[in-house]
Formats: sequence, C-alpha cells, structure tokens
Amino acid sequence: MDDEDTFKILISTDIHLGYLEKDAIRGNDSYNTLNEILNCAKINQVDFILLGGDLFHDNKPTRRCLHSCITMLRKYCMGDSPIHFNILSDQTVNFNTTKFPWVNYQDENLNISIPVFSIHGNHDDPTGAEGLCALDLLSASGLVNHFGHSHSVERIEISPILLQKGSTKLALYGLGSIPDERLYRMFVNNQVTMLRPKEDQDEWFNLFAIHQNRSKHGPTNYIPEQFLDDFLDLVVWGHEHECLITPTRNEQQLFYVTQPGSSVATSLSPGEATKKHIGLLRVKGRRMNLEKIPLKTVRQFFIQDVVLADYEDAFMPETPQVMKKVENLCYAKVAEMLEDAERERLGCPLTPEKPLIRLRVDYSGGFETFNTSRFSQKFVDQVANPKDIIHFLRRREKKEDIKGRAAVEGLRVEDLVKQYFEAAEKTVQLSLLTEQGMGKALREFVDKDEKDAIEELITYQLEKTQRHLQARGVITEQDIDAEMFTLSQLCQLEQLYVPSLTQAMARARLHRLERGETSGGLDGPAFEDIAMDSDEDTVPVSSPARGRGRGRGGRGRGRGQFATVTVPVRTFGNCLTTAFDACAHGCN
Amino acid sequence: MDDEDTFKILISTDIHLGYLEKDAIRGNDSYNTLNEILNCAKINQVDFILLGGDLFHDNKPTRRCLHSCITMLRKYCMGDSPIHFNILSDQTVNFNTTKFPWVNYQDENLNISIPVFSIHGNHDDPTGAEGLCALDLLSASGLVNHFGHSHSVERIEISPILLQKGSTKLALYGLGSIPDERLYRMFVNNQVTMLRPKEDQDEWFNLFAIHQNRSKHGPTNYIPEQFLDDFLDLVVWGHEHECLITPTRNEQQLFYVTQPGSSVATSLSPGEATKKHIGLLRVKGRRMNLEKIPLKTVRQFFIQDVVLADYEDAFMPETPQVMKKVENLCYAKVAEMLEDAERERLGCPLTPEKPLIRLRVDYSGGFETFNTSRFSQKFVDQVANPKDIIHFLRRREKKEDIKGRAAVEGLRVEDLVKQYFEAAEKTVQLSLLTEQGMGKALREFVDKDEKDAIEELITYQLEKTQRHLQARGVITEQDIDAEMFTLSQLCQLEQLYVPSLTQAMARARLHRLERGETSGGLDGPAFEDIAMDSDEDTVPVSSPARGRGRGRGGRGRGRGQFATVTVPVRTFGNCLTTAFDACAHGCN
Repeated sequence: MDDEDTFKILISTDIHLGYLEKDAIRGNDSYNTLNEILNCAKINQVDFILLGGDLFHDNKPTRRCLHSCITMLRKYCMGDSPIHFNILSDQTVNFNTTKFPWVNYQDENLNISIPVFSIHGNHDDPTGAEGLCALDLLSASGLVNHFGHSHSVERIEISPILLQKGSTKLALYGLGSIPDERLYRMFVNNQVTMLRPKEDQDEWFNLFAIHQNRSKHGPTNYIPEQFLDDFLDLVVWGHEHECLITPTRNEQQLFYVTQPGSSVATSLSPGEATKKHIGLLRVKGRRMNLEKIPLKTVRQFFIQDVVLADYEDAFMPETPQVMKKVENLCYAKVAEMLEDAERERLGCPLTPEKPLIRLRVDYSGGFETFNTSRFSQKFVDQVANPKDIIHFLRRREKKEDIKGRAAVEGLRVEDLVKQYFEAAEKTVQLSLLTEQGMGKALREFVDKDEKDAIEELITYQLEKTQRHLQARGVITEQDIDAEMFTLSQLCQLEQLYVPSLTQAMARARLHRLERGETSGGLDGPAFEDIAMDSDEDTVPVSSPARGRGRGRGGRGRGRGQFATVTVPVRTFGNCLTTAFDACAHGCN
Repeated sequence: MDDEDTFKILISTDIHLGYLEKDAIRGNDSYNTLNEILNCAKINQVDFILLGGDLFHDNKPTRRCLHSCITMLRKYCMGDSPIHFNILSDQTVNFNTTKFPWVNYQDENLNISIPVFSIHGNHDDPTGAEGLCALDLLSASGLVNHFGHSHSVERIEISPILLQKGSTKLALYGLGSIPDERLYRMFVNNQVTMLRPKEDQDEWFNLFAIHQNRSKHGPTNYIPEQFLDDFLDLVVWGHEHECLITPTRNEQQLFYVTQPGSSVATSLSPGEATKKHIGLLRVKGRRMNLEKIPLKTVRQFFIQDVVLADYEDAFMPETPQVMKKVENLCYAKVAEMLEDAERERLGCPLTPEKPLIRLRVDYSGGFETFNTSRFSQKFVDQVANPKDIIHFLRRREKKEDIKGRAAVEGLRVEDLVKQYFEAAEKTVQLSLLTEQGMGKALREFVDKDEKDAIEELITYQLEKTQRHLQARGVITEQDIDAEMFTLSQLCQLEQLYVPSLTQAMARARLHRLERGETSGGLDGPAFEDIAMDSDEDTVPVSSPARGRGRGRGGRGRGRGQFATVTVPVRTFGNCLTTAFDACAHGCN
C-alpha cells in the first residue's frame, strides 16, 4: 500500500492551539493534541501534513502558544528523514507570504523531515497592513508552508501546488478563510478561478483545502459545495468542528468531501461531541484511501437533552418539590454520562480524566430553572466544565404566526415578496443561478427572520445581471446609470441573449456521464458512497472512473467569460515544466 | 589580525526593533538598522553576534515586528559559512529557555552561519507563568541563542558560555535585565555569583553582557561597576542609549566597559544625539581590540539648547513683539541644525533624509511659550519629528532652600539624618560597603528629593548586618526577632568580629599590583585609557598584564560565605572538560 508512488498525507484541521489555555483543567488540551497529531505524522512517516486552517485559536496567539507550537514543529517536523516528492509548480506563486517563497524542505539551511502545508482559518486569518497571520511567523521561520493566501479582494486565483511522487501527480489547491458572504459573492460573480495544469490534466489528483462554513448559516453565509469546481477529487473542508471525516460524495459535482472536524471542542454543542479523528490519506495515481485515526488525547465530551415536559408521569410544574425532582433527574443524567465516560476511557491512559459534560434541559411548559451553581458543586472534581454543565432552554414558539409577523413588518415585506416573484418565477435561470441563495431566500426569511436577505439578494442579482448584459453589449452603462430596466426586464433580456442555464447544465451532465462510462484505463471500481461505520474503520475510497472534458463548454454552467491564464513554472530539481488553464468557477 | 585564534564578534545593543513602527516617517528606521547591523556582521564574517538586550522595543512585538526579525535573521544568519569555534561549557545550563538547550549552530537541522547570542533587555524581558520573552520565540526557532536568563529570584548564578577558537578561550557571561533595585540588593547581599572555570583560570578572556542602568537614577536604581567581579576583562553594557562604545577603564576593578548605545533614538535627549555605532570586537588570547563601526541607516538627530535670558541684548520679556522675536530665534536655530544635518548627510545615501531635531528652549525669567503647532508647520517637510521640535523648559530653582525644605518635611527627615550619622559615621566599613548606595544616599536625598532613600537603605543595611552577624554566630535569630540591637550597635559588633573591609581591600589591591608587575608572559602593553577620538577611529586595547589570584581571600572584599560550586560539563565535539569555581560578587 505504501509504495514509492503513494502519497501519504496526514490530514487535520481546526487544532485551535491555545484554546482556553489559561483554564486550570483544560489549559493543556489543545497542546497535548497537537503533540499527538504531529507524533502520529512522524510515526506514520507521512509525506506531508495538510492543515485545514485554525491551527491557532487566537488571531494573536500568546507567547506560550507560539513558543509551544514552534517547539513542537521543530521537534517533530525537522530531522533526517528524506522527502520523496517533488514540487513542479512555481513556488513563488504557491508560497507568497514570506521572503522565502519556496517549500521549507527545499531550503538548504533547514533539515525538514515532514513538511506542513497549511491554509489559514478564520481564527488565525491575516490582519493589518501587511496582511500577515500567525501562520506566517511559522512560515518565515521555515516550519510551515503557508499557502492559499489570496492577496486580492477583487479576484481569487487558486494556483495549485503541483506535487509528484513517483508516478502520482497531486495538485494541492488551497484557499484560506475569507468571510463567507464575500466569498459567496465572488463565486457567484465568477471572481474565483482555479488554475489547472495545461498538460496531462486528467492525470492529476486534485485536492482542495478550504476553510469556510459548509452548513448554511444564512442565505449567503456559507459556501455551497456546488460552487466548487467539479474537476476536484477530494475537498478537505475545515472550519466545521463536527468530525465527518469519512469522505462523502457530492452527487452533483462528483467529488468527495472530507470534514475532519476540530481536534478540540471549542463549544459544548452536539457537533463537538462526535468522536474526534484525523485522517491518513493515501493517494496513488487517481485513487485514494482515507484512514480514520481516532485522537487519544482529546477530552471526552458527552451531551444529552432532557425535555422536562416528557416526564409528566413523574412530575408536573405544579408538583410539590418539583425543583428538587428536576434536579435529581439532571443529577442522574449527568451521573449516567460520567459512567459512560469512565467506561469508555478504560484503557486510554492519554485521555484526560475529567470529561466535558453538557445537559440541555428543555423547561418549556411552565417549569422553572434551578440554581446551577449548587448543582455544579457536586461535580467539581469529576467534570472538566463544572460551571456550565446545565444549559436551560425553552422551545421556540411555532411558526403559525408568519402572516401576523408579515403584517407587522408592513408593506415593505410584501413589496419584496412581489418583486421576488416577478423577477424570479418568470426566469428559470435566475432561480437556478441562485439556487443556493435567492431561490431559498424567501424561506430563509420566513424561517429565520432574516429581514434583509431578499432585498440584499435582489439588489445583488440586479447588479450582476446588469454587468452580465453589459459585458455582452445587450445594454449600455448609460442604461444602468439611468436605471432603465427593472430586474424582471433584465432577466427577460438575459433569457433572450444568453444560452439557457438549464440547457447548459443538462448538456454538461450528459457529457460527464458519457465520459465516465467510456474513459476506462483506471483499474479502480467506480465511486461508491461510504457509510460511516465505526471509529476505527479504514475506509477505502477509489477515484472515479470518470473522464475530464478538455474542451470548453463541454461541461459546467456555460456562463461567464473564460480567460485562459498561463502561468510560468519555476522548476526545482528534476521536475517537469507545466502551465495552467484557467478553470473559472463552474466552467472549464 | 583575523587569524584562526582571533574571535571576531559583532557587538550591538538596544536595537529596539519595532520602535515607532506605525510612524509614517520613522516607521522603518529600526528595521533598516537591524538589517544594516546583520549585513555588517555578514560582510565582516564575524564569528558571532553579541546583543546586549532590547532587541525588541515592545515586550509583545507586533506580528510585523516578529516577522521582519525572523526574516532578517534567517536571511543573514543562516547559510553555509562554517563556524570556527567550539563550546566547552554545559549548554543545558547556558541555554535554558527552550526545549533545545544547545547552541543553534550545533543543531543538526539548522544551517547557521552566524550564531547570535543575546541577553534580554528590560523592554523584551520574560513575563508570564512560563517566564518567556520575545527572544525565546527566536530561540525556539533556532535563530538566536538566548542566554543569561536567571530563573531564580533568590540567587543568581552566572555560568559562562565557554568558547574556544584556536588557542583563544573566551568566557561569555550574560545577565538579562532585572529591575535595578532588585539586582542592586542581590549584589549587596552576595546573592549574585559568577562561576569560573576551575582550570586555566588565567587563560580565559572574560566578557560580560549586562543590561542595567549604568548611570545613577537613584541610590539603588542602577548597578555600580564596582559590583561586578574584577576578574572580568570587558563588560558590554546595554540599556544605556548613549553611544560610549570606546572601552573605558574602571580604575578600581581594572576591567574595561564598552557601552555601544542604542541603534535607534527612542527619546529626544542629548544622549541619543551622539553618533550611533556598533562594535567589531577582536579577542586573541587575553588581548582585545574594539573597532567602532558607524551606522549609516540611523536617522540623524540634532539637539540644541537656547536660554532666552542669554539674549538680553536682543530682547527682554517686556520687549514689544517679544514672542515673534523668540520664535524667529528658534526658527533660525532649527534652520541651522537642518543645514548641519544636510551637510553631514552628503554622500550618505543610506541615511534617511529627514533628521530628528530638538530645540530645548529655556524660557526662565519671565518669558512665555509660543504656539508650537504653528512652528511645526514650517518644518513639516524637512523634519522627521515636526510635532515635537520645540521643548520648553524652565530652570529649576537653586538649592539654597534645603534647610527650608527639611523643616517642612518635619522631624522624620531629621531623625533619618541623625540615624544615618549614628550608624554610618562611626563605622568605616559601612560607608565603604555601601559606597555606591547608602554612602551617598544623603546627598541623593538633598539633590533629588528622594525621601525614602535613606530609610530604605538603613532598614536594608540593618537586615544585612543582622544576617551577617548571625551567620558568624555573633548574634542569634532570637536577638534579631527581639530587635535586640540597633544598626549602630550591630555595626560596632561587626567591626569587632569581622576583618576590616578597608584592610581587606587594601590587601587585595596590593596583591593585584604585585601580580600585575610580576606576571609577565603576555606580550601586550599595560592597559591604557583610551580617549574617544573620532567616529572612524579604531581603538586598540590590549588585555592587562595582570595576574589572577587563585586562592581565596587574596583579593575582593573579604566578606560573605564562599561556596564552591562545581558544574558538570557536557562536551561537544572535540572540546575540553572543565569545571567551575564559584566566584561570588567581590570575592573569589
């Protein structure tokens, strides 16, 4: 399995070094786990480590935090083990945040045994006039290779690090954290471009590290997987703390997504209670395999919900001494979790003794809350977070009063809704285009009370459509300035002059299927969805037997202007020369 | 001159990296000068760089500051030039602030061309539970060798880094900044020990880097040169910003002191106006030579004093339009300085264009101040500090009213003075012992209004004398607890039981002179005082032809308990094994 053609990559993200470092109990948690992760990389003799952002919890880590990090990186990632892969791309483009724009292991003054490649997260993002982040200190020291930092707010061009080990070619794409709304818009506006090598495009395994909201926090406050280019093979998704490391297939884009999750719980939410893992990714040719490695130093976290109204047999709000009974119930629940924790911890000497415990108590229906500080006292020696074990909550009211609310909000809402239907319903492509945005903005509004969502999206769509039509000479700048057309009218114009999106997408899908069935040459089985079995399982994933459209318009959404960007390649050692095609979002 | 037996050391201090880094004009000054210093080290192919503290201006340097520093160190101090000296001492003792307790150039994973040895200053001193300073980040990265960090507040043991190049043996002592009062007391209490190699003591050139007040800021708020062990050959004194780099001889201790001064002006005081230099120190055997190297990137700083009362021929406070005349005078003075600056800068392309200008205007005698913001406007394009060119001051009143003040202060002062004379005058050794402290405390009080100085010193002396006598069994702990003796009585007891200090010192001096005249074997001329000539001069200094007392009591002040400390020596490569004698302050 581990031969000279196989990349062995340790994948980890959201290490949040320094999280709660002043806490007497949990202070060392993040440090211990980074140590475990680096040690794991060393033991497994990986080719490199790929970090998905938020290595540091604080934008300005403390001295202790930086010192520990530097110390651990120097301890584990420097040494005599040789590096078995080459870099074929222009490193001055790949590593653009220091005066040493080359990979650390090729620096003649540093003896690197395990290169670390990292994008930055939202916690350790670049700030200040120099646009430097904490990672750049490590980068300048030669301990980390910070990549995926886009310096422009106008346009993002993601130029991959092209790695070759034996016969395997790995294109490593990365995009450091960008505010989700901004990135969302840039994707929608075709301002995000992923460059691809011009030669042998189908031979590359395309790996992309991203650090954004994956789950929808608002209409445009996340990045839909559909935004990502479908030539990718595997996306390593950082930022989301729930460990969903087993690659899941995106049926539309036909790539896989692995979400390793954080290696320390930074909130007491259910997502953080999932058992934490890192991944050992093997890539050989176009095939991959992701081995899940459970982390042993992570503090256990148990969470349970209690709905008091469900215990009507035992007590009701008016029952005498109901508070006492409720408290006893909670006490029993916490004790139960503590027992579970202890049982699970048996034989795991590296796991910290005191678990994190959270009991969410739904006291809807007339119950009252009890004194949590007295409750905490009972667990002060057994629980890592005695002060906030209990979290009281009440169910939200039902949504029967939407109409009432709309009435209260007044005409403005109605106007917006009307405008929405005028603009969107008549134009199929609009709702498709903004499938992830405007198409659902109405529901979003109703669901989540996000008042400005629709207005914002309509203005946005208006400007976009204007630009689109202007670029094609359908309307002029004067038309725009004079606000000659409503959005609805613009959409109709667009329908007339621009090839239908639905048609383009259907064509693209057909194209892919055809290629997929006829490409051959790869010996692996077709992609299969992988179910998450148990924590210790190794999940074999093989690369899809699908072909790549080389021509333009063969797939993708068929919109936008398609610039071809050729990037000169600096060569290192005995490596190939290559150049890039621009592969803008959704088109190739 | 530069042969295989000659250490070539670049000496610099108080670089204050990051000083005013947000200033539009001066923001890059400290960075440019660090760059110049490191470049100078590289060009001169020095064996190592010795920094005397305050490399960083801020205890928590900004990201930009750390990033720049790391970048420059990596650029200039890493590379293939071989290192020509060995370290003979136990490096785990020398470099005790990281998990890598060895000199960076011996680390197998780092290719160091110029090792940097640095003590910390008061600006970048260790803080927090971990006792880490900014320097330790560089240390952990392997870019700097931080030494001279004492982790104990009870006792300071300065264990030298023992370096050998060819036949030259260099013992490098360092003591990072400690609050002056605290260190003063520790010296007085014999809590500061300098260890010396047991073998071949006379063969070592003893170099000491210290970062403390050298000029007296208060009775105990500085470190008198006399406190330092007289076996030293050269003291590199950091912290003081005035460049007094030409070694001056301390006639009492017979060592030399070089005060390189800061490489950036952090205040507009006269000391900072002295031309800034770094030093190129050559040490061969026991001889040394310090070459002054003027810094080219340092912003010029001109300062002048104007006493308005001196211009009585031109104007008086009641002269019509006197303000205008005063302003014109100041204007002319500043213009004059600007002309001087420009002339001096001719042919110095690296020197920043706009100089720092300070005009101190003494307006005593009834004059008024004028509007400085209007004044500043005139020089906004020519001066680096337009906003604070003018500094108005008034002469202090004469000291004729000391008696009056004393009367106002009341009995307490008189009591203190009485107590002082009772205690001090009768006991010769007391005034000698505290020559730098209590002996001058009275004048200090009168001069500088430091009310607590005497009381503090007397209490201090009382405790010290008590401990001293208790250690000799003259008095008991019960006596102390019961406050059986006054300071005066204790001093008398001390006089009876402890050999007279004056006698001990006289004996020691005699001893030294004898040795000095008879030692021979060193071919250099006897020490000579060196006058500061011009900026470009090279000042040859040769080591004194003086012997070293090996026995105890042969010199020094003859007090205190003399512990012998033997330190195991870790060996690196082909180096000698050695051990240490404890050489406590003032005794051997």
